[in-house]
Formats: sequence, C-alpha cells, structure tokens
Amino acid sequence: MEGKSMKVKRNQRLIYLTNYFVEHPNQLISLSYFADLFDIAKSSLSEDIQFIKEIFQQYNLGVVETIAGVSGGVIYSPQVSKAERQALINEMTELMTDIHRILPGNYIQLNDILQNPSTLIQAAKIIAEYYRHQEIDAIMTIETQGVGLAAAVARYLNIQYVVVRRDSNETSGPTISVNYISGSHQTVRKMELAKNSLQAHSRVLIIDDFMRNGGTVNGLISLLKEFDCQCIGTCVFAENVLKQNTDLPPYESLFKVEIVYNKEEKAFELKVETGTVLA
Amino acid sequence: MEGKSMKVKRNQRLIYLTNYFVEHPNQLISLSYFADLFDIAKSSLSEDIQFIKEIFQQYNLGVVETIAGVSGGVIYSPQVSKAERQALINEMTELMTDIHRILPGNYIQLNDILQNPSTLIQAAKIIAEYYRHQEIDAIMTIETQGVGLAAAVARYLNIQYVVVRRDSNETSGPTISVNYISGSHQTVRKMELAKNSLQAHSRVLIIDDFMRNGGTVNGLISLLKEFDCQCIGTCVFAENVLKQNTDLPPYESLFKVEIVYNKEEKAFELKVETGTVLA
Repeated sequence: MEGKSMKVKRNQRLIYLTNYFVEHPNQLISLSYFADLFDIAKSSLSEDIQFIKEIFQQYNLGVVETIAGVSGGVIYSPQVSKAERQALINEMTELMTDIHRILPGNYIQLNDILQNPSTLIQAAKIIAEYYRHQEIDAIMTIETQGVGLAAAVARYLNIQYVVVRRDSNETSGPTISVNYISGSHQTVRKMELAKNSLQAHSRVLIIDDFMRNGGTVNGLISLLKEFDCQCIGTCVFAENVLKQNTDLPPYESLFKVEIVYNKEEKAFELKVETGTVLA
Repeated sequence: MEGKSMKVKRNQRLIYLTNYFVEHPNQLISLSYFADLFDIAKSSLSEDIQFIKEIFQQYNLGVVETIAGVSGGVIYSPQVSKAERQALINEMTELMTDIHRILPGNYIQLNDILQNPSTLIQAAKIIAEYYRHQEIDAIMTIETQGVGLAAAVARYLNIQYVVVRRDSNETSGPTISVNYISGSHQTVRKMELAKNSLQAHSRVLIIDDFMRNGGTVNGLISLLKEFDCQCIGTCVFAENVLKQNTDLPPYESLFKVEIVYNKEEKAFELKVETGTVLA
C-alpha cells in the first residue's frame, strides 16, 4: 500500500477494500487500519463494509464478518458457490472417463488433476470453507502430490503448513520420525518432520491428495502424537478406500473414485462420486 | 456465480468485478461475460473496468488490461507494491538472524520460511510479476520444499505446474527419468516425471526454493530436453551459490543467503542480500 492517507471516494474505497479482503483471507483486520488509511470515520467505513458484505453474500463470493470490541475488526473467508462446486464435480467426472488412468495393480493416476491451478484453488477453497469454524493451528501433509493443495488450504485458513518427508536431507535440521505401514506393499517405511516445525499442543488438520487404505494417514497421526499435537481432522481430495481395511482413521473427502467392471462394455472403468465434503 | 442476470448498480458491479479479477489472475475474460451477467451495455462495463484499473494502478494492487477485438477481453495480473517488497525483505533479514539455521556441513535451514502462507504468497506474486510478459506454458519444480511456491506461481500465471520426483510410485504411470549430480554429495541420483505431464515444445519455467550449486537445476534442464521442452528460465526463492562451481545454469533469485564469519563476534552468521528479482 503506497497511497498516502487521503480523502478517497466511496467507489474507490469499495474497490480497495474488496481487493484487500480477497487478498487477506481469514485475517482479522482492525477497522482503525482502514479508517486511518482513508482518513474517514469508522461509521462510514462500517457502511462500506456492510455494503461489500451484502454483495459478497448475494453472489456467494465469501463471508465478511465484523467483530465488535477493542480487539475486533473485519474478517473475510472465501466461499465456493453451488455452481462452482458443480463445475468441479463435472470436471472430475469428465477427467475420470479416461481409462488410461487405471494403472497396473489397480492404482489410479490422479497426479495431473491438482496440477491445474484452477482445480487446485477450487478444491482448496472448498476444504477451507468446510473447516472454517474449527480452531486449527497448522496443516500437515506428506510429500509430494498433496503439497500444492495443503499450501493453498493453509493460505485460505491463514495458518502455516508443514510437509512430512520420507527422507529428510541436509537442510532439514533435527527431525522426529516414525515408521508406518505403506499400504502399497504393506511394508514398513519411515516418515519424518523437522523438529521445529510444530509447537506442542497444536491442533492440526491433515491434508492429502489421495487415500487408499489409510496407512499413510495413520502414520501422520502417530507422528503428530510424537510432537504432542492433536489431529483435528483429515481431508483428502480423493479416496479409493479398499473396503477390507478396518483400521481407517476418521476422514473427509471431496471425491470417491473406484475402479468398477462394466459388464455390458466388458471393460473396467472409473466411477466418481462426491465425498463427505461435497455431498 | 449464482445471481441471475439482473440490473445491478455501479457500486455492486465494481465489487463483483474487483473480486472476479483478483480470483482469476492472468485469465482473459470476455467483456460479453460480464455484460450478459449484469445486463448492461459494453460501454458502461468499459467505464467500470477503466475505473477499477485506475484504482488498482494508484494503489499498486495489480494491472488490469483490456484487449480490443473479437477475441479480446480483460485480464488482471497481480502486483506487489514497493512497501510489500520491503516488508518481505525485512522479514527475511529478521529470520536470518537466527544462527540455529546454520546446520552441520554449512547447510542453511530455510524450510519453515515458505510454510508461512503470507510469505509464500508474496514471493509467488513477485515471481509471477517478474515473468508476466514471457510466454510460459508450464512451471516445473522438484519435490519437496519448492512445491508450494511453484503451485502458487502457477496459479498467478494461470498455467499448470509439474512436480519432478526422486522416486516415483505406483500412482505415477509411465515416467521419463534422467540421472543428475546431487550437489550435496556429488553423487549420481535419479529424477523422474510422469510422461504425460508435459507436451512437447512447451516453454517451461523452473521454480525451486533453494539453489546451492545448480546440480538439481541442471538435472531439471536435462529432463526438459528429454520431454522436447524448452527451459525459459529458472527462479529460486534463495540462492547460496558456492563460488567455485563454474557450471551454473542461468538463474534468478529473490534472495542470496551466505554464511559469513564475523571477526568481531568470533562467530558465524548469516548474510542476506536481495537477488536479481528483488534488486
């Protein structure tokens, strides 16, 4: 913000404020900040904010809340409209018609989907909106494919994110590690996180791109225990949960994908359904 | 957008348009889209856009460009003001006073910095602004610490990003791999990328968190050759280039960090300077 304190017209203030809210999701901003910036009374500012709040509400652009009191201010949280949610569902359904996504061993190739920034952003906003009222201190994810999503959710919730590694390197500093059962081969693998990444007693939301049998998530939860932290939820972009596994942690998902046999076509195909977050 | 076509007042349109621009960086939006939505003449819409453009310019909020012609429209690109750049520089300088960042082997611990979403977003916007006028088809990064930054830059440039892995897994599908010299130990390592990640002849920008001696970046460039793609630039958040290495690829950076010996204090400390992108 390089403009100096000056009398600005209402129209100009509305543009500035809208931009500021969208660029500062989930941040409590003191009304004094804007009142000083525009050199106006807080009552005029409150009218501006009320007006933006109504437009945002009308078009499902997000929630603008004002909090009264000395430590109060205004806070914006993004929202995703029904139409945008449906567009994401349609896109996923379309992408899953490509049977080349079915890989040897009945794995499903999904890594390209979250590499499209629009898809990533919509998914992240939907997750942030879902957990908006929860008290969360940090997002945790594990390398590699879920990192972009975790970083974007962290941005919308305005909290830090930490990335667990399967092998740390020279730039990590001291780490804490646990072993976990990698579902892919039911083998024991190691995961580790830099010791200074999380403060004790943090409330942590686990975010990942894909969940197959929960082995990785169970590992992340046990790693959180070593940090004296609490897992307040797990959310994945897509789940392909194998029904025989009974040791699943509680989780939420945007999508469920499954390989099914189409008897008429005599071929395997992918079935997509909405998960708990989008249902 | 769930509001139906309706007569909306100018103030309301300004709020809606500002929100839309900020949420759709680097996307060419047809004027007809908004004209239909608001049920107004394109001339009125052009006035609205011109007004927003001026306010954005005045406050360094971003660039709004209108492109004339049948395939024209309006396109917004984010900008980072001088004050915000200086705030990022101050933050980095402050963070580098922590000498615990100096690790055995003269490695520097930086992984927490880009896990703060505000820092990540500012860095990503600065990089996107720097490369705004270049024709770029995709962002490439390598796991793990640079993924969040790469995803955010991709979002602001509105292009896909791809993540190179050191070990692919069952969900990758066919990959192309190259060996590279890992600078850490001057050992040969493998990096690989899913074969369907990049189209031939793509123009690719490499983004990473840290560069020490360029071994990883040289590997990424040779991998791009295997995909028949062109590296149009390399940008890292921080560099700590060891002077003896003469085989460096061309690159840009936001920061240079170096371990220096303070004779007066008789201790090692970290020196931060701005790199080419912030200079």
